[in-house]
Amino acid sequence: MIPRYSRPEMTAIWSPETRFKIWYEIEAHACDAQADLGVIPRENAEAVWKAKDVEFDVARIDEIEAVTKHDVIAFLTHLAEHIGSDQARFVHQGMTSSDVLDTTLNVQLVRAADILLADMDRLLAALKKRAHEHKDTVRIGRSHGIHAEPTTMGLTFARFYAEMARNRNRLEKARWEVATGAISGAVGTFANIDPAVEEHVCARMGLRPEPISTQVIPRDRHAMFFATLGVVASSIENVAIEIRHMQRTEVLEAEEFFSPGQKGSSAMPHKRNPVLTENLTGLARLVRMAVVPAMENVALWHERDISHSSVERGIGPDATITLDFALNRLAGVVENLVIYPENMLNNMNKFKGLVMSQRVLLALTQAGVSREDAYRLVQRNAMKVWEQGADFKTELLNDPEVTAALSPAEIEEKFDLGYHTKHVDTIFARVFDENLQH
Amino acid sequence: MIPRYSRPEMTAIWSPETRFKIWYEIEAHACDAQADLGVIPRENAEAVWKAKDVEFDVARIDEIEAVTKHDVIAFLTHLAEHIGSDQARFVHQGMTSSDVLDTTLNVQLVRAADILLADMDRLLAALKKRAHEHKDTVRIGRSHGIHAEPTTMGLTFARFYAEMARNRNRLEKARWEVATGAISGAVGTFANIDPAVEEHVCARMGLRPEPISTQVIPRDRHAMFFATLGVVASSIENVAIEIRHMQRTEVLEAEEFFSPGQKGSSAMPHKRNPVLTENLTGLARLVRMAVVPAMENVALWHERDISHSSVERGIGPDATITLDFALNRLAGVVENLVIYPENMLNNMNKFKGLVMSQRVLLALTQAGVSREDAYRLVQRNAMKVWEQGADFKTELLNDPEVTAALSPAEIEEKFDLGYHTKHVDTIFARVFDENLQH
Amino acid sequence: MIPRYSRPEMTAIWSPETRFKIWYEIEAHACDAQADLGVIPRENAEAVWKAKDVEFDVARIDEIEAVTKHDVIAFLTHLAEHIGSDQARFVHQGMTSSDVLDTTLNVQLVRAADILLADMDRLLAALKKRAHEHKDTVRIGRSHGIHAEPTTMGLTFARFYAEMARNRNRLEKARWEVATGAISGAVGTFANIDPAVEEHVCARMGLRPEPISTQVIPRDRHAMFFATLGVVASSIENVAIEIRHMQRTEVLEAEEFFSPGQKGSSAMPHKRNPVLTENLTGLARLVRMAVVPAMENVALWHERDISHSSVERGIGPDATITLDFALNRLAGVVENLVIYPENMLNNMNKFKGLVMSQRVLLALTQAGVSREDAYRLVQRNAMKVWEQGADFKTELLNDPEVTAALSPAEIEEKFDLGYHTKHVDTIFARVFDENLQH
Amino acid sequence: MIPRYSRPEMTAIWSPETRFKIWYEIEAHACDAQADLGVIPRENAEAVWKAKDVEFDVARIDEIEAVTKHDVIAFLTHLAEHIGSDQARFVHQGMTSSDVLDTTLNVQLVRAADILLADMDRLLAALKKRAHEHKDTVRIGRSHGIHAEPTTMGLTFARFYAEMARNRNRLEKARWEVATGAISGAVGTFANIDPAVEEHVCARMGLRPEPISTQVIPRDRHAMFFATLGVVASSIENVAIEIRHMQRTEVLEAEEFFSPGQKGSSAMPHKRNPVLTENLTGLARLVRMAVVPAMENVALWHERDISHSSVERGIGPDATITLDFALNRLAGVVENLVIYPENMLNNMNKFKGLVMSQRVLLALTQAGVSREDAYRLVQRNAMKVWEQGADFKTELLNDPEVTAALSPAEIEEKFDLGYHTKHVDTIFARVFDENLQH
Repeated sequence: MIPRYSRPEMTAIWSPETRFKIWYEIEAHACDAQADLGVIPRENAEAVWKAKDVEFDVARIDEIEAVTKHDVIAFLTHLAEHIGSDQARFVHQGMTSSDVLDTTLNVQLVRAADILLADMDRLLAALKKRAHEHKDTVRIGRSHGIHAEPTTMGLTFARFYAEMARNRNRLEKARWEVATGAISGAVGTFANIDPAVEEHVCARMGLRPEPISTQVIPRDRHAMFFATLGVVASSIENVAIEIRHMQRTEVLEAEEFFSPGQKGSSAMPHKRNPVLTENLTGLARLVRMAVVPAMENVALWHERDISHSSVERGIGPDATITLDFALNRLAGVVENLVIYPENMLNNMNKFKGLVMSQRVLLALTQAGVSREDAYRLVQRNAMKVWEQGADFKTELLNDPEVTAALSPAEIEEKFDLGYHTKHVDTIFARVFDENLQH
Repeated sequence: MIPRYSRPEMTAIWSPETRFKIWYEIEAHACDAQADLGVIPRENAEAVWKAKDVEFDVARIDEIEAVTKHDVIAFLTHLAEHIGSDQARFVHQGMTSSDVLDTTLNVQLVRAADILLADMDRLLAALKKRAHEHKDTVRIGRSHGIHAEPTTMGLTFARFYAEMARNRNRLEKARWEVATGAISGAVGTFANIDPAVEEHVCARMGLRPEPISTQVIPRDRHAMFFATLGVVASSIENVAIEIRHMQRTEVLEAEEFFSPGQKGSSAMPHKRNPVLTENLTGLARLVRMAVVPAMENVALWHERDISHSSVERGIGPDATITLDFALNRLAGVVENLVIYPENMLNNMNKFKGLVMSQRVLLALTQAGVSREDAYRLVQRNAMKVWEQGADFKTELLNDPEVTAALSPAEIEEKFDLGYHTKHVDTIFARVFDENLQH
Repeated sequence: MIPRYSRPEMTAIWSPETRFKIWYEIEAHACDAQADLGVIPRENAEAVWKAKDVEFDVARIDEIEAVTKHDVIAFLTHLAEHIGSDQARFVHQGMTSSDVLDTTLNVQLVRAADILLADMDRLLAALKKRAHEHKDTVRIGRSHGIHAEPTTMGLTFARFYAEMARNRNRLEKARWEVATGAISGAVGTFANIDPAVEEHVCARMGLRPEPISTQVIPRDRHAMFFATLGVVASSIENVAIEIRHMQRTEVLEAEEFFSPGQKGSSAMPHKRNPVLTENLTGLARLVRMAVVPAMENVALWHERDISHSSVERGIGPDATITLDFALNRLAGVVENLVIYPENMLNNMNKFKGLVMSQRVLLALTQAGVSREDAYRLVQRNAMKVWEQGADFKTELLNDPEVTAALSPAEIEEKFDLGYHTKHVDTIFARVFDENLQH
Repeated sequence: MIPRYSRPEMTAIWSPETRFKIWYEIEAHACDAQADLGVIPRENAEAVWKAKDVEFDVARIDEIEAVTKHDVIAFLTHLAEHIGSDQARFVHQGMTSSDVLDTTLNVQLVRAADILLADMDRLLAALKKRAHEHKDTVRIGRSHGIHAEPTTMGLTFARFYAEMARNRNRLEKARWEVATGAISGAVGTFANIDPAVEEHVCARMGLRPEPISTQVIPRDRHAMFFATLGVVASSIENVAIEIRHMQRTEVLEAEEFFSPGQKGSSAMPHKRNPVLTENLTGLARLVRMAVVPAMENVALWHERDISHSSVERGIGPDATITLDFALNRLAGVVENLVIYPENMLNNMNKFKGLVMSQRVLLALTQAGVSREDAYRLVQRNAMKVWEQGADFKTELLNDPEVTAALSPAEIEEKFDLGYHTKHVDTIFARVFDENLQH
């Protein structure tokens, strides 16, 4: 976790205080269920709740762990200090440490997913707003970094919206993947604890019982969870790269919002750098690097080994905290992005009319010219624009082979911008009205 | 693609012949839709279907591409050689190469997913069969590679079944992710082609129209697809590691089926090595290595760049072919796995009675001994078994502090194996009857 | 291995024919050494060389392997078919399959490294030539994609040269890492074969004896090898990204060479896309994906398991073949890259004089203005250029706070381009004359 | 950085205090060099050293950065608060932020490498000591997890020593890779600062001048650095996996040291789990996950973008701190590992005599039996041992086909253990006396 790339709400989920609180709740709910089953006295179960409002002393627990070298035992010892060791003696009965640890991890991941889903909503709202705002702001579409045909800035935002809506959907599925708990004992057989305890605890903690566990909850779930975060991060990179391109000096179709006090460079005061989106490009890599180790964690020996644990101590907080930060940073960038429609037009007209070449090609074909000839005619005139700065329409009007096939009016008509934007409403309807179907 | 790790049906999906066939179908369906719209003459659309049964000449297309340096143009030129260049002149009208290429890739991925789903069904059937066969075959459960408490071989198979059932579900979602097509033109605006063409082609090819594309279908879909394959591969590794452990000389609870003619080692003829599952461990890595590049492919410049293409030429075939092979190899291993129940019992009894220590601990606690004392009593006697080869039950019966809390009959009862298997039916019901809910 | 991204010389290293040839040579050299030691009859050792010019029959060996399920035994059986089973009976004596397999793999990797080193030489020569050609071709240096200060195209080539020279050095080390062989028997103890055999075979095959092996050569060597390829690939991506940026429509400072017959797009005939460097960006990902599995291969069970083998069957050929192709493709791109010095000047002057702001800032500071004030003065005038298209020098000359500190002549002097290129020779000397020291 | 997996000395390298200290030193040395050149007054350069013993106020710098949104400017502002803004006005002159930031990062990486090299020395010493201690402790060598032929525990330690010695060598090279600094200005042209400043600062900071930089030091160096850490981590995993296997209940040839107060399991008090080596398996993944993002960092746009920065804020500290911890943890495990030679013998004899099958096979061949027949004879008798628990030697002595070729004395001789250990000294000499040559 890098402090400058973290937000308090997400960070809090991973604090020792929160972790011990969840451990406590799981133990207390388990005691209730055990009392319901008559396995332990009701009075002892009730006594556990005396610690309901206790803020557990992390330093004290660490101190005990230094001796026992076992974190759950350290916690239970400390809990007994609060509720009395006599009252505490049924706590954790029939359970194994991983029952607590794994159920806790999944509670944390579910809460993290809830924050990420809310982040996504903020980002989606921003993208939707900017899409509609610039639905008709024409700019040149580019493939290979080379001008192709006109599109609109609204379509750019709309496709990021669609991509992020898919990601929101994936995040929901990822949340569902890890929303299970297990209280099934040392090897998952429920030998020392009734399945009813698991059901009770899971219901109280907002989880489903894991259908079959070993000592641990199977890690394919977590692999899927972190893989999904990796995909979301990659989409963030996708948007970031677009904005970085738009802001480069020669393009300058958009800029990240630049606050009055901000300094762009210690050396070059005129510079306004797309530092937020560059940063997002890097943050995407940080999130993505959790994916492979999460997959390597799936293959545990027999009923479990503990190799996954240190990995999850790292990637659990790091990937969720970084992604939470990145989603919010990106939402801010999108909300405040300064768009320069005039520069968009200027860029589009850099090679006068050339972006209309595809239309001319088609018109020639439809007028009976063979595809090969049409291609040759268009390329011949296009090259004059490219190399000599000529005007494409003028060149076409002066090319007798072209005018033999197309009248001046027909050529003129090919340079109408509206031709390219006529389906924008259709696409917007697909993205914003029917999104859930796709 | 490594020939020895490939199966013909999956490999065929990625052959040039199949690819050109799909290209052809897309072009032909697009012509139909264009004729329906009145954009091109019906007669030309119909003429395209004359090539319906043509096996396209890959060498000839390569030859043309060597000149044009453009694969789709090379194909179209070759197609014109079949149906006549006059009839062919409306083929591909208004389309861009990626309309064909991307829609084709997704057709291939969908077909690959269908095979993988069928593979998964074979594997699931094998796991289910073996689970029920060994539902009550007791063996020691292990955590950290150390004996813990008894479980059954059936539960091991059942948890692999549950994991693979989740993977089947994920594969279905992954298939859905990539089941889209796009015929939207050079920058995705439908400037030169009506959205109705896309709808028609997609319907015919078994795809949904991509709601908003650029020149290409967005690559977050493919990232999710390959990430899912990576998770499935990791689960294969999980099963493989279990079997490799079971087969090691000191454990020998199971062996891969060893055919009569097979030789285990050029030097040590007695050896029967778990080579199939070792191989699966490696194949899992090969599949998994597609995940990161697929994510790196998401961020394309503007309306597309072609950096993703070479990556997909590699990972598209490689990951699906390898996973297909691995799933079938694993299914075969599971179907034929030789299980040694007697060795399981021998292993469990290696440290006489020690695996029952948890039960004794609980019994002591319930009999009023403090948790700390109970722990001390159990550990004291356990250490004698561990270090001196003593019998745990005998030691307990001879420990006055223990017998002060538990009667001999109570101690005796703690060593009943049935105690550990009493919930096996419950767990089987969760896995096999209610699987879809989890 | 993707045929279109492969070159015959590298591909040949990985053919079955080459593999069997190397196996044969290892076995034959081992027989010589065994005869020297008196372990086997000289006559039998000599008999093996009868097959010296045999092209082994891959189909026949595969046929035998289908029965034995063991590749080395299949080969030895086939070899006996050539030299007679009686003469052949001492072949492979005291050896284990991995002695042959691992030594062979390393021979292949060493040969692959030799080709890659030659590729690198071609690339280095091209970079050096272009660097000197454009040593003084001024263009704007950019950070964050934003204009910064002038630099030269020669410096760009020179830094790619320096980076690739480092990579050449790394490749030499990587070659050295894997240039070992092992003939040490089933668990590496030389129980059945004298270390002298290993020494003899390694000397003949151009390898060093592995100081201590198990059944296999340790895989940390191969991990380092493939990690190095990953770094080289990342540098290729670095150069490719630069060229892609230079070719984008708004920048157009360079273009990949565009051959006369080549077609840029099926739809937009004017387009010249940087498809080679885009392709290289993808190829870099393909090479890089070998890195993690190669590292996962290091941890083998005890004296070996075979999980690494399938991985190496994939990444061994794939990573070397792809990198060989990529290095050559990149060399070709660099050799033929079309540079547009005039566009470089035009781009630099897009915001008139603004790139000199750093010099003005310094001059103001040196003239006694506080750093904060100087920054404010420069930024105030810079913003007029940025936002209103003003000329920077003119604005400065008209700003009384500026002229209070600097005379018009002093201001004028700050706009001299030679100021920025005065150390180019120094840097060239560092790169090209003293490269080996860095 | 995960506190429980970190050591103070390494962590201190990455503290804000250390970072600001290094920034300060770079700025102060640069001022000295500038004064030497006569660019700034000597007095101002000397004034900077007034802050030599200042512990910079991190909170105050953060406060300033919150306004300026630029870390280096914030630091310089704070530095001016210490030495007076008038005296401070020449600090950083002609430099760009990255001159400071990149040189600092490399100072940190070099210091981190020095600690890692010392860690490695501790580990190497432990491995060497244990290797000699158990040079002749016979145990069974295993391939595929299956018994093969005898080896010794000393050889196991010796091969880990050799692997780690290679890693030490790699770490030295990795340290060399990043031991460069750059003070070359905004785009690396030295336009505003003389190369002599770079030379002076680098010499003082223990670095070499980067031959050619842009705004930043090229990231192929860092990619190589982190890739090397990934290889070292993979070797740690290799050792860890071996120990985990040795400790599993059925094998029990070694155990991690178990301190008296330590509790193995909350539920099963008899358990002694190899938790340290399991943990190391996970830590290896955490280190390794830095490799791919470090490679993705190589391709920066033009003279630099800042996408690498956030990645390095993560992986810089995380990978070095985790690896430092892991190397020390592993050294401790090796130093204290409890070895059970008696269990090693028991395991080896589990299948009586079977591990000698290779010798018998060879003897038969040398006695004139064809390889195929010898193989059949050995396998026939081996199978009886495997399946019926027979004694291999007895079976051979009773097999007339065997005794037709070998006398009883010859058979007897094949079961001598010394045969397998006769080259241990040779191998030890290779590893420990001549290590530097390999």
